[in-house]
Amino acid sequence: MTDFAWTRDQFHVPLGLIYLDGNSLGPMPKATPARIERLLTEEWGERLVTGWNACGWMDMPRRLGDRLGRLIGAEHGHVVIGDTLSIKVFQALSAALQIVPERRTILSDRGNFPSDLYMAEGLIHLLGDRHDLRLVPPHDLEDAITEEVGVVLVTEIDYRTGRRHNLKALTRKAHDMGAVVIWDLAHSAGALPVDVAAGGADFAVGCTYKYINAGPGAPAFIYVSPEHIDHVEPALCGWLGHDKPFSFEPGYRPATGIERMRVGTPPVLQMAALDAALDVWDRVDMADLRKRSLDLGGLMIEEIETHCPGLKLATPRENESRGSQVSFRSEHGYAIMQALIDLGVIGDFRAPDILRFGITPLYIGEAEIREAVEVLARILRGALWDHPKYHRRKSVT
Amino acid sequence: MTDFAWTRDQFHVPLGLIYLDGNSLGPMPKATPARIERLLTEEWGERLVTGWNACGWMDMPRRLGDRLGRLIGAEHGHVVIGDTLSIKVFQALSAALQIVPERRTILSDRGNFPSDLYMAEGLIHLLGDRHDLRLVPPHDLEDAITEEVGVVLVTEIDYRTGRRHNLKALTRKAHDMGAVVIWDLAHSAGALPVDVAAGGADFAVGCTYKYINAGPGAPAFIYVSPEHIDHVEPALCGWLGHDKPFSFEPGYRPATGIERMRVGTPPVLQMAALDAALDVWDRVDMADLRKRSLDLGGLMIEEIETHCPGLKLATPRENESRGSQVSFRSEHGYAIMQALIDLGVIGDFRAPDILRFGITPLYIGEAEIREAVEVLARILRGALWDHPKYHRRKSVT
Repeated sequence: MTDFAWTRDQFHVPLGLIYLDGNSLGPMPKATPARIERLLTEEWGERLVTGWNACGWMDMPRRLGDRLGRLIGAEHGHVVIGDTLSIKVFQALSAALQIVPERRTILSDRGNFPSDLYMAEGLIHLLGDRHDLRLVPPHDLEDAITEEVGVVLVTEIDYRTGRRHNLKALTRKAHDMGAVVIWDLAHSAGALPVDVAAGGADFAVGCTYKYINAGPGAPAFIYVSPEHIDHVEPALCGWLGHDKPFSFEPGYRPATGIERMRVGTPPVLQMAALDAALDVWDRVDMADLRKRSLDLGGLMIEEIETHCPGLKLATPRENESRGSQVSFRSEHGYAIMQALIDLGVIGDFRAPDILRFGITPLYIGEAEIREAVEVLARILRGALWDHPKYHRRKSVT
Repeated sequence: MTDFAWTRDQFHVPLGLIYLDGNSLGPMPKATPARIERLLTEEWGERLVTGWNACGWMDMPRRLGDRLGRLIGAEHGHVVIGDTLSIKVFQALSAALQIVPERRTILSDRGNFPSDLYMAEGLIHLLGDRHDLRLVPPHDLEDAITEEVGVVLVTEIDYRTGRRHNLKALTRKAHDMGAVVIWDLAHSAGALPVDVAAGGADFAVGCTYKYINAGPGAPAFIYVSPEHIDHVEPALCGWLGHDKPFSFEPGYRPATGIERMRVGTPPVLQMAALDAALDVWDRVDMADLRKRSLDLGGLMIEEIETHCPGLKLATPRENESRGSQVSFRSEHGYAIMQALIDLGVIGDFRAPDILRFGITPLYIGEAEIREAVEVLARILRGALWDHPKYHRRKSVT
């Protein structure tokens, strides 16, 4: 049984703030500064270059990959940490295409995060523009998986609406059609139970600065299934993915296993912050988390629909069809969110009209949800958002 | 006039240690822990997601790029920080090839760092194996630049021997032949004066964890000349290289200028460590640094040749032909280096027989050089290295 009073106490959330944006950047675990201080003064400061071995820095991508792997149902030794999510999408997609060399269609949906689609575009161009990136509305994705499709690139949770794809069904259909599937778990890892092994994911990628709480610019992760890992050639042939990086051989030979998805020198400070964040996750049961997340999300939907007429639910109402966020639409969304932030309720706005609230049971409970909705209702009743200071400038959060 | 007593006082070097491995991982600036603590507690902890704007995190890649750009002679606004050096090599090479679409040869030399060559191999394969990676001995590089060559990929300082290429001459020759040049400054930035603008570099890349002292896994940098930047399409089309990342448009459109070489979310903790490291560099004149580096390197060569017969100089003797390291060869190199490290002199070993010592005037002076050579001489005289505990295991530093 997960002790959510204990988890809440593991995070620093500023007094008076209601933080509903952990789906963009998680708050800081209280243990992080001491962990980083130790890394700096005892490890880098005292051990200098010998820290790569003596302090285990070189193995962090794999070791932390396994710690994170538990949260997504990965087999031991099949997840590695590093780079950014965009880079990991590129690696996964270029590897996936090798498995289906005769197929020319990459299928995704218009709800996918743009960077995934941009990276796919860039890769297609490098490969000589012989592939087609086919985009369909999210609800048409399953039907669009035909025998033409080589790779399905799917993000489980829509970053705007919180709509959840049924990854198991999509993956089953894809495999029936002879396609391979890449799961983007950006809004899933740490948000709900994921099971890459049982669900048959060929590849999975994700980031750690959202629900995992590893800090701004925390590294990404990649999973490659045991079936594929030793048969795909890395496109980004960095020395730390080489079979013998420190032999400095003239030619590239990929390492055995997931290590081949490493590229360059790992960001040790960010890795240490991830390590500290994962300490909290060691005491979290994902089924408990999911139940609480759905309860809190359901409560928020109910409260907003009761007290905030004029806002229109953008998130699917059914539990199985939503992730761990709640989104509403309003033509005044931008100004409303600015007013909310001004009053200490942090969510975010996504163009053109989405108010987005992350539901993160590790540090958010019923009281915060109710209070956030009260503030939101007050803003709407008094039209407090209709003040010049809340009118649109460029949003970059 | 650079005050090297002041610079020395800016670094934490453990008592009794002589650190001659700053060309692998620089030591920690004393100011770094406080800067990171502030980032964690005041920025991430208190500002959470709003830190991206409020604390300037989103602009760090460009802002720190300009700070670093001064050390390599870059025009303002033409350097951006991010990712790893391997990724930046990939970006530079894929962009460079676009400038010479009709040419099929990428030229480099066998002294180049393997990861550069591996990344080139991987890119060539993605591009359909239509290019040829031609490798020549370092001293043949200039002659090998013919009208067949499209891109010259050259690392100024050889990571093993410290041999320095004449980048200006190579670049002149390349331009005469219609080729473009990528300078890898891994062992140059912070080691000696570099002038990408005056030297006509088309692209330059490098890392910040060596001479720059930004910490383990610190991010890399990329420079693209004003002539090219708006004409090359990024191969890694990450959302933060998009013209309007927060518009979440369906198609990729590269940002104007160097921002297009950004990919994913910047590693803010590592960036803050780089920011702290650059504070020291603000008070360093690169000509002073070079003079002192050559003096100290010359002293080390002289002392080792006098007191350590049996070691054979691997670094060129002429000032203009060496970087900021001194390397000697010995068939017992591995064991000798283990013994040195055991006695508090940290250099490193590079297969098959290279003892490598970084000369870093910011925190190393004559006294340390003399003492290091005394310890080395003692090890050789007493054959202290010939102890089972120093015999070869896998070296990973």
